[in-house]
Amino acid sequence: MTYGEIAQDRLTKIAACSSGDAGVTRLPFTPEHRAALDHIGAWMAAAGLEVRMDAAGTLIGRLDGPENAKTLLIGSHQDSVRQGGRYDGIMGIALGCLALEKLQAKGIALPFAVEILTFADEEGVRFPTALMGPRALAGTFDTDDLALVDQDGVTLAQALADFGGAPDDIAGLHRDPAGILGYLEAHIEQGPVLETADLPLGVVTGICGIERNAVRFTGETGHAGTVPMAGRRDALVAASQFIAAVSDRAGKTNATRATVGTIRVLPDAVNAIPNVAQFPLEVRSVDDGARAAFSDLMRDLGHQIAAESGTTFDMTRTYQQPAVSCDAALTRALLQGAGPQAISLASGATHDASAMAGTCPIAMLFVRCKAGLSHHPDEYARADDMGAGIDAIAAFLTGVAAS
Amino acid sequence: MTYGEIAQDRLTKIAACSSGDAGVTRLPFTPEHRAALDHIGAWMAAAGLEVRMDAAGTLIGRLDGPENAKTLLIGSHQDSVRQGGRYDGIMGIALGCLALEKLQAKGIALPFAVEILTFADEEGVRFPTALMGPRALAGTFDTDDLALVDQDGVTLAQALADFGGAPDDIAGLHRDPAGILGYLEAHIEQGPVLETADLPLGVVTGICGIERNAVRFTGETGHAGTVPMAGRRDALVAASQFIAAVSDRAGKTNATRATVGTIRVLPDAVNAIPNVAQFPLEVRSVDDGARAAFSDLMRDLGHQIAAESGTTFDMTRTYQQPAVSCDAALTRALLQGAGPQAISLASGATHDASAMAGTCPIAMLFVRCKAGLSHHPDEYARADDMGAGIDAIAAFLTGVAAS
Repeated sequence: MTYGEIAQDRLTKIAACSSGDAGVTRLPFTPEHRAALDHIGAWMAAAGLEVRMDAAGTLIGRLDGPENAKTLLIGSHQDSVRQGGRYDGIMGIALGCLALEKLQAKGIALPFAVEILTFADEEGVRFPTALMGPRALAGTFDTDDLALVDQDGVTLAQALADFGGAPDDIAGLHRDPAGILGYLEAHIEQGPVLETADLPLGVVTGICGIERNAVRFTGETGHAGTVPMAGRRDALVAASQFIAAVSDRAGKTNATRATVGTIRVLPDAVNAIPNVAQFPLEVRSVDDGARAAFSDLMRDLGHQIAAESGTTFDMTRTYQQPAVSCDAALTRALLQGAGPQAISLASGATHDASAMAGTCPIAMLFVRCKAGLSHHPDEYARADDMGAGIDAIAAFLTGVAAS
Repeated sequence: MTYGEIAQDRLTKIAACSSGDAGVTRLPFTPEHRAALDHIGAWMAAAGLEVRMDAAGTLIGRLDGPENAKTLLIGSHQDSVRQGGRYDGIMGIALGCLALEKLQAKGIALPFAVEILTFADEEGVRFPTALMGPRALAGTFDTDDLALVDQDGVTLAQALADFGGAPDDIAGLHRDPAGILGYLEAHIEQGPVLETADLPLGVVTGICGIERNAVRFTGETGHAGTVPMAGRRDALVAASQFIAAVSDRAGKTNATRATVGTIRVLPDAVNAIPNVAQFPLEVRSVDDGARAAFSDLMRDLGHQIAAESGTTFDMTRTYQQPAVSCDAALTRALLQGAGPQAISLASGATHDASAMAGTCPIAMLFVRCKAGLSHHPDEYARADDMGAGIDAIAAFLTGVAAS
């Protein structure tokens, strides 16, 4: 078997660590999580790593380097969404282990230590928080989150303690940045860019910042039969002009992705002119300035549409997360390691790497996935694409070693 | 007190025949309906009418004419929506009674009989049907509807029988068209046209036909962060272009009113590109041909938008009700009766008159209402506008008598 085929085989087998029928459902600190760690412990052992679990429930496989050498971290998450796929998160662990296994097989020793980090929870499905593992390492975990409960009323602290973690010791996990060389994460792309480019790999330039805005047009309701078109102040018509413009304007920038994913109108009746239309506008960009400029543009346009339609317009930012840049040197090394099989692209989704970015240089490798499909039972990555990823990670490690 | 002030006083008093707090809630065959009929019986008696209730629960006040004379019908409904206003429906009864009272006071005898018809149920709030009273007279009532139940499981037949009606005798109510001179209905406008025109009265040219279409754009979902703008097939963006065009195109016709009152998207998540957007498109026009042409135009445009946005489009007619023309001669008489205080306009809403139109000539008089507001506790018509309506009905009756 090729390394890519081994990855496919391992991911097929670990996919059985799941509750429910369709796809993979593997939430943190569950029997499925426990079963998955048995597999991952074996992957790590096969790569010659020393395995332990930290206080936050992160399974760590460590390959020591020379004395006093820094550590390069390779991480991703074990958990899935409900009825998710076989690759999201867990593939990054499989590829990291196999890249080290390949280097070991070639007899290549690295001049630094490597740790493979299997974070418990990136998706945030069980508890209304996520990224505890990387945040603990970065020193940004808010211990108040330990009191959050799942739908059965179990606290995060209790679930973690029952799993063998140590909630009280999480603060002590904070790593000294001076000892870390960097953090690499491999992940399926979760989008169609690589498939469109007909290439197996992508090197991530940065992780998009995100903002969400609550948008509301307010007009006047009335009977659909008795109010002439000319006098109407229809909130849904105004919202429609706005949503069409969001797509049109965002399509004219290369820097911004903007989406309206849901909408509600009032009074919400087939024969009543809507007096309220409200919806969230989500804007993402690797360039925070471009993102701000886009939402300013849409705010101006919203007021203009409101003035022309006799409605009022309100757009309030409800959430904001700045963009994260990948490290230039690590990214260069990753591009060199991947060679002509890779292009550069931005990550539109958040990853464990987002939480690590505050404490050390980060780099990310994307692997092509079928039809851009993710968080779905049909999520799929080809064995040879994963093989290319393993080769790229191995080449990256030797490249960093040589630099 | 002027006749308009008497109307205002009567409508204020009868508004107390209501269940619940805000506005008027008067459903058919309830204690509130019974209490209202006591008021209306007194109005009819004051106008010299002989009062009886027919098998369908319609309270009829009859003023006999010469032997073998035809009968002119004046009708409207006693019921309201939940938390409705004081004028919708019931005002037509009050104005009819007062017009006859005025003629009696002047000593004017008409060469035909007049009946004032207080229909039990036009709004269709209690039972999932409506217009039993006028349909019974027109011979179009479907007796299967008697088995329909309200939210307490009471059948329409039972409610009617308990109220003193006779479900088994409804079929016998069918009036011979040869004996009917015509049907007149006075109603608040429920729209802003008369207020905009600064006139108290409107003479209805016809009642709009209505069609409803189930519209659906289907695209492809994806992650709001990972799918570039260029490759998207966003069903909500396509729907938005369509809805904006509905308003724009309908605004360019004088003949058509078109409304999208509600919308649903899937998967309905803030960070997911919508793959489905579905909504009803309601189109109304007094010109059935213009309505058909408009929906054909929108169907073509929908397919064009779908082709340009990589989505598919479906538009299926789910309901259709043809337009009803008011009788030319009666309408002319009503315009003459109303004089310079009236303009002609179409009715965008359905009325009892719609159900009568199949069996006899119809005419309708609209009275200005404040801000076009109806089906609302703040629904309001001025006493002097109602006075103008009473004068117009009285003049119409003498005009018809003279013709």
